[in-house]
Amino acid sequence: MKWSDPRCRPGGGAVPAPVLLFTPMVETELGRRVHESFARQGLMRSIGARLVDVEPGRVVIEVPYAGTLTQQNGFFHAAVSAAIGDTAGGYAAYTLMDPADDVLAVEFKINLLRPAVGERLTAEAVVLKEGRTLTVCQSTIRAHAGDRATTVAVMMQTNMRMRPS
Amino acid sequence: MKWSDPRCRPGGGAVPAPVLLFTPMVETELGRRVHESFARQGLMRSIGARLVDVEPGRVVIEVPYAGTLTQQNGFFHAAVSAAIGDTAGGYAAYTLMDPADDVLAVEFKINLLRPAVGERLTAEAVVLKEGRTLTVCQSTIRAHAGDRATTVAVMMQTNMRMRPS
Amino acid sequence: MKWSDPRCRPGGGAVPAPVLLFTPMVETELGRRVHESFARQGLMRSIGARLVDVEPGRVVIEVPYAGTLTQQNGFFHAAVSAAIGDTAGGYAAYTLMDPADDVLAVEFKINLLRPAVGERLTAEAVVLKEGRTLTVCQSTIRAHAGDRATTVAVMMQTNMRMRPS
Amino acid sequence: MKWSDPRCRPGGGAVPAPVLLFTPMVETELGRRVHESFARQGLMRSIGARLVDVEPGRVVIEVPYAGTLTQQNGFFHAAVSAAIGDTAGGYAAYTLMDPADDVLAVEFKINLLRPAVGERLTAEAVVLKEGRTLTVCQSTIRAHAGDRATTVAVMMQTNMRMRPS
Repeated sequence: MKWSDPRCRPGGGAVPAPVLLFTPMVETELGRRVHESFARQGLMRSIGARLVDVEPGRVVIEVPYAGTLTQQNGFFHAAVSAAIGDTAGGYAAYTLMDPADDVLAVEFKINLLRPAVGERLTAEAVVLKEGRTLTVCQSTIRAHAGDRATTVAVMMQTNMRMRPS
Repeated sequence: MKWSDPRCRPGGGAVPAPVLLFTPMVETELGRRVHESFARQGLMRSIGARLVDVEPGRVVIEVPYAGTLTQQNGFFHAAVSAAIGDTAGGYAAYTLMDPADDVLAVEFKINLLRPAVGERLTAEAVVLKEGRTLTVCQSTIRAHAGDRATTVAVMMQTNMRMRPS
Repeated sequence: MKWSDPRCRPGGGAVPAPVLLFTPMVETELGRRVHESFARQGLMRSIGARLVDVEPGRVVIEVPYAGTLTQQNGFFHAAVSAAIGDTAGGYAAYTLMDPADDVLAVEFKINLLRPAVGERLTAEAVVLKEGRTLTVCQSTIRAHAGDRATTVAVMMQTNMRMRPS
Repeated sequence: MKWSDPRCRPGGGAVPAPVLLFTPMVETELGRRVHESFARQGLMRSIGARLVDVEPGRVVIEVPYAGTLTQQNGFFHAAVSAAIGDTAGGYAAYTLMDPADDVLAVEFKINLLRPAVGERLTAEAVVLKEGRTLTVCQSTIRAHAGDRATTVAVMMQTNMRMRPS
């Protein structure tokens, strides 16, 4: 993926300088930490998912459409929405933790609002409540067709902080 | 997959005649209908998932371990549990519908009880409540290591019947 | 409750004319319809809950603190948050339906973010997705202590439209 | 409530000696601990709920029908199912904890399968997974009309252990 690729930008086509969204993320300690962990996720790699934005308490993940990601009618499978929503939520929680901590999702709930039809799917996760043990996130999953984004699913998710023993 | 493959058997290696589990399923109209729909799911194919058992109100799906299915620590990604739990639930609901109906999952909730470590993962979905419009299913996701099965997640899921217009 | 009671105002004590919040709601056909249905809910009456705001796609319900609403430590019981969140969600969906339709909640999920400590609890429900059959709502439950509001729980809820037969 | 009251018995009218169900529970340290905590729950008292059975990893709560517990059509309000399901789950988790620990529900999800019509409602909670920090329970809520019990809702619920500091 080129940094100039308009698909990098969650808001669509009008934002002029997408490079700036990325540079700080990868160049900070937090950005490196999240990217390294993400790169170890075989599933994220195999479905073609990419980290699009990482900041404290907020993570965006994107996955382009592929025939390997469909349900029986050719749309994105609900499990792809769940996969990127859950992963974005976990990393959104992780951005608020100590570098030595690890994060584990303990449950999530997803409402599938509309068929996920589009060229790509994004999940934007934000932290609703940061806790000493549990951090609750909300993910919004959108399908993008051209410049148009449609919310196709919403997720609530609970993450547990795992401290090094 | 050969019918004699021991991985076809949800209970592990000691059951003597796995062929019998499969033959009726594929040879009935219901079995064919579910298999044909399942075969159109690009995601199920790309993660290596297989229909293991189909009967009215109950469906089992299995996926063998692969490095393409992991989270950051090398275990099955929670989204794989969600993917096969959701798909098994949808088809469990579908087994009770008219051939002309289609099924759409509208929401699910998963509790991730333990790390999903093993050679393969199965999801067994059963119908809790069949309704004219909505059918509620429960899926149990198990990790299998040798002869030992561990429940790693439980899911509650709601499906909507889509009648032909 | 007097209309001038500051507790009528979800935002706290500074809004000058709370009467205006109520008058239109009760005087419209929609307001009357929601109020009449709400008045038939024995549970809402017995816990002291009140409709605070009704507009298309959004409903706010409030319940003042009482010793009859507590869990073992004297805080609002989580079930009170669930009760007003679920009821507000149902009526938020109902505001978008035909007068002859009825509404039935089919599932909800609540994350309890903080102890519900305060003089009163409000649930603000908004419609996330209106559908022909299903309408999905999100409720935010807040505890109010003086002028300060704290989000104590969030709910996602699915409602089914029941058409007259 | 008299111990001989047939409503004490979850299975209905044929069990001969309901006293035996209760005596051990109240006479053990665990039974006393759960009963004392339950007695402090103002909401359980005000809705007329009773502990029917307490054993390690399993709790049953019952509430008789009353006009103060209804939704707009005169059935039990879904929030009553949620209230006893959530409370039974919390105490089921609590039965497996140290006497000094406290328990806090962090989230639950309920599927409302059928209208809750009957003389009384019971919630039977069992522990699905006991953890050092989190304990996951499942509650089955049933409406009882005469000798007949109907499952009206199912709940999955997560509880957090609070250790004394």
